[in-house]
This record gives sequence, structure tokens and C-alpha cells, in this order.
Amino acid sequence: MMSLLYHLNGELVERAQATVHVDDRGFRYGDAAFETCRAYGARVFEWNRHRDRLEATCETLGMAEAVPDDLESRVEATLSANELEEAYVRVSVSRGVQPGKLTPAAEVDPTVAVYVRPLCRGGVGGEPIWDGPATVETVETRRIPDAAVPVDAKTHNYLNGILARLELRESDADEAIMRDTDGFLAEGATSNVFFVDDGTLRTPATGTILPGITRERVVELAASVGIPVEMGRYEPAALRDADEAFCTNTTWELRPIARIDGKPVGRGDATAGDGDGTAGGGPITERLRAAYDELVERRCYD
Amino acid sequence: MMSLLYHLNGELVERAQATVHVDDRGFRYGDAAFETCRAYGARVFEWNRHRDRLEATCETLGMAEAVPDDLESRVEATLSANELEEAYVRVSVSRGVQPGKLTPAAEVDPTVAVYVRPLCRGGVGGEPIWDGPATVETVETRRIPDAAVPVDAKTHNYLNGILARLELRESDADEAIMRDTDGFLAEGATSNVFFVDDGTLRTPATGTILPGITRERVVELAASVGIPVEMGRYEPAALRDADEAFCTNTTWELRPIARIDGKPVGRGDATAGDGDGTAGGGPITERLRAAYDELVERRCYD
Repeated sequence: MMSLLYHLNGELVERAQATVHVDDRGFRYGDAAFETCRAYGARVFEWNRHRDRLEATCETLGMAEAVPDDLESRVEATLSANELEEAYVRVSVSRGVQPGKLTPAAEVDPTVAVYVRPLCRGGVGGEPIWDGPATVETVETRRIPDAAVPVDAKTHNYLNGILARLELRESDADEAIMRDTDGFLAEGATSNVFFVDDGTLRTPATGTILPGITRERVVELAASVGIPVEMGRYEPAALRDADEAFCTNTTWELRPIARIDGKPVGRGDATAGDGDGTAGGGPITERLRAAYDELVERRCYD
Repeated sequence: MMSLLYHLNGELVERAQATVHVDDRGFRYGDAAFETCRAYGARVFEWNRHRDRLEATCETLGMAEAVPDDLESRVEATLSANELEEAYVRVSVSRGVQPGKLTPAAEVDPTVAVYVRPLCRGGVGGEPIWDGPATVETVETRRIPDAAVPVDAKTHNYLNGILARLELRESDADEAIMRDTDGFLAEGATSNVFFVDDGTLRTPATGTILPGITRERVVELAASVGIPVEMGRYEPAALRDADEAFCTNTTWELRPIARIDGKPVGRGDATAGDGDGTAGGGPITERLRAAYDELVERRCYD
């Protein structure tokens, strides 16, 4: 186990000693909220959006007051104690230990964990954390519908995505693309999906997906540089037939998709898969990646 | 915290010391299988069925080999060390700690926990663990469909049921009844549902429910005593209009339902709610409860 300090319930602890009780509802039931953040130059990018979503998830879980007021300083203390400037940061808030009933008690003594791990530099001079464009596959596992578990809650109940990824065991794919229960394109196990058709950027609308913070930022950046954006319900074929496609999440940022269900993206289109080793990119993807890197540079490294 | 010994990864440990790492996938993602069993007279009732289902869940989760061969003896050792004959027993098998990726590694070093807690005696001379018949309410939260997470997997992803129970916060109801995404009756947050119409016992068919082991046993007992059983898709109104209704799970066994959505069950029907303080029962419910108690008596106390 890599030697690191985690922050657990208000204290820095050696990673090896960072434990929760087996009766913690986070372990028993996945009864917990989390966020995956990224620190660039020791600053947590989009902290306010992550904190807002974490609070919204906790409110959905009926523990609106569980997020500690000083969570940001706990994160900063963890980065500092580990001398980390470039890092993956996960914050988890579980409902903690309660008497042995499924129905949650109103009184909550949450378990609050901050995890960190070193990453590479981002921004304009940075490197992506991935080795290359993504290979993705449409899987049979369907995205859990909003009526069963609110789709905008980011929780420790992550088996839906894990089952989707398990379908890729026999392949070399990086991401599993789920459809919603009506068969429309939803999202990847840990990412949102975008694609480009004739210069328009498209992504599945909210309602059946976790509205990612990187997704939201990419939509804003596209608008700011004059790329038309459409959010809607799309057949999986729309993604397969696109000129360009990419996934987004906090650590991947924008990751071009090179292959979908075994076929190259943008095949026969000079704007993508151009044979120079960057297959999977394309002019709009690259423009948005550059805009994202510039934003990170400006916000975190200036 | 009640002083008890739990069994964790092959060893008996004081409950207070029974912890898992925050990087355990059981905590991070609810990536774990479990069973709730009941020991009567120091014997674990229906052990083979519970073990089979635990293995089936682990297979669904892509960790078919994770259930230890000696799990039954771990349970027995835990009961014995706590000098418990009448007990709640939970066994959990998580995928353990793996490198920081959502996609599970093929190699699994599972976390295996056995939890126990004292209960009252069951069987013919026994007492139910509940105080009285259940009050239930139909909730808005819909049962996660099979296409998203296989419904027969019993996992630590339990937020669907928790969200259902949270809808009962303002009421005094004991159980939340979920419909499936098509609006048909599915199950309670921790129980299966049965009802009686004109002498026929009805319960939602498999496909949208966790097929409970008590449910399965009750269906067998009904057949053995000549009560007609029908499994199908039912509107919530069918439950509300029934002559009798009850919930089943391992610890509740058969628990009569007295009120559904604010109305008494079997109202105006002399066979139920008969004013002697056992409102919610009825002749078929009582016959099945007796048959269940006799089975427990024969299997565990003889």
C-alpha cells in the first residue's frame, strides 16, 4: 500500500490505519455520498461545485447536515501533509454507525474520509492521466433510473457501474457505455459522453445521467467559444456514427474516444482518426481540451 | 456499543475492533454480497439456501470464488464464542481492497465478516421479534429494475430500500412497499409481500423482486398444507383490497400487515382485524405462521 496520509473524522491518519467499523452504514449498505475532485497546483478545481453536489447528495440521503463546514480545509490539510500539489482527491461522507435498523436515524454522526493520490500536472503544460484515447463498448447493464435512485446523487452504491465494467472483462475496452431503461444513450460507468455531428456538440440530457461537473464545464466552454451544443435523448447509433466523440470526468478531463463497439470513430472523415497517432481526437474535441486546459491553468496555476 | 465478538477475515474480534479499510471496495462502492440469517437453538436455519444465494450473488459480482469454504464453521464459531443460541447472523463478503480503479481486478482477497446479535427464541414456543402487526405504506421510490442491477443479487448497495424507508420519516409505518418501474407491486425495503384473496395466497412473481428465502419457504409451506398459491404481477390496489396480508423476511418470519396506506387490511371482513388485539392476522396468515414455527421447531430445536 502506497504510504500516504488520509484524513478521517477530523484527523490525519496513516493510510494503513484508515479504517471504518464494519457496522458503518457506508460499509453495510453503501449509505454514503462522495465526490472525486482534482487538485492542480495544490488548488482543488471546481471545489464549490463539488461541495454543492456533495451537499445535494447528502440531502437526498436525508442527512443534509452531514457535510462538515471545514471540509475544504480538511482537504487542504491532507494535500499539504502529503506534500501533494497534483492529486486525485476523494471525499466521502457516510451515515456512520447507527443501531441495527435499515431505516436511518435522524441523528447522524457521519464518517468523513478524505483520500488522496498523486497525479500528474494538468493545465496548459500538463499531461492527461490516460495513456491514449478511449476504447468504449455499449453494455447490456442499464443505468439505474431516477425513479429508483435519484440519478443526480453520487453515492457509494456503485454496483451499477461496476456491473457495466464487468461486461468488459473479456475485452480491452476502457469504458462501458450504459443506455437508460428506454434504450437511449446515458453515460459511462465513471464518465459522461459527448459526440460531435457536423460541428454540433451533443450529450445526453439530464434526467437519466449523473450530471458531471466536467460535463457541465465543457458545455459552458463550448458555448463560450461558439460551438453549438445540444442536449437530448440519443440512440446508441448516434454515438457510433459521430464525427468525434469523447468522455469526460474529473480525472480524465476530456478523453477522446477512438473506438466504439469495435469500430473507429469518425472513420473516413478527415477530421478524426487522422493517422498521426492521435486517432480519436478531432478539431472540436481538441479545441475544447485546449479551452479546458487554459481554464485549469488560469484558475490553479496563475 | 453492545459487547460482542464478530468474525472478521478468519478471526474472532471484539466488535469495537471490527473494522475494514476505507479503501475496501465494500466501503467505497458497496461492492459486496451479504445474507441475513437466523440462528434458532444455535442452528442456522436454511443455511444451505443462504449460502447458495450468497454464492450466486458473488458470481453475479464476478467474484464466484470469494465465499470461503469454511463459512458455516465461522458462523458456528461466532455463535459459540458469544454463547448465543438465538441470534441474528449477517455474513458479508466484500471484494476487499484493490488498486484504485472501478473495474474489479480478477484476483480477489475478500473481506469476510460475520455479525451476530441476540434475538428471542423462535419455533413453536417462541416469540416474534416485532411488537405487533406491520403498518405499511406504498412509496414513490421504485424498485431498481433487473436490467440495471440483477434483482436476485443481495448486495451492500442498499440505498434503494433506504430511500424507500426515508419516505416514511413523517409516518409511523414499519415498512415501505415499492412498486416496480411499470407500477406493479414489487416488495418491501427488507421484506417480500403476500396477500390473501378468497382463500388464495398471492405474491409478486420473481423478476422484479429479491426472491426471499422466507418467501420461498412460505410458498412451499402453503402448497404443503393445501393453500392455493398464485405468483403474478399485481396492482398496488390488490394488496390494499386483500382479505389478509403479511410481509416475510428472515428475522420477521411472517409478520401480519394491519394497515396499508392508512387503511386497515380486511376491513369489514370477520376473518381479519377481529378486535382481539391481533388485528392484521387472519386464518391463512395464522395457519402459515404456525406451519413456519413448526418447521423451525422440527429443524432447529428437536
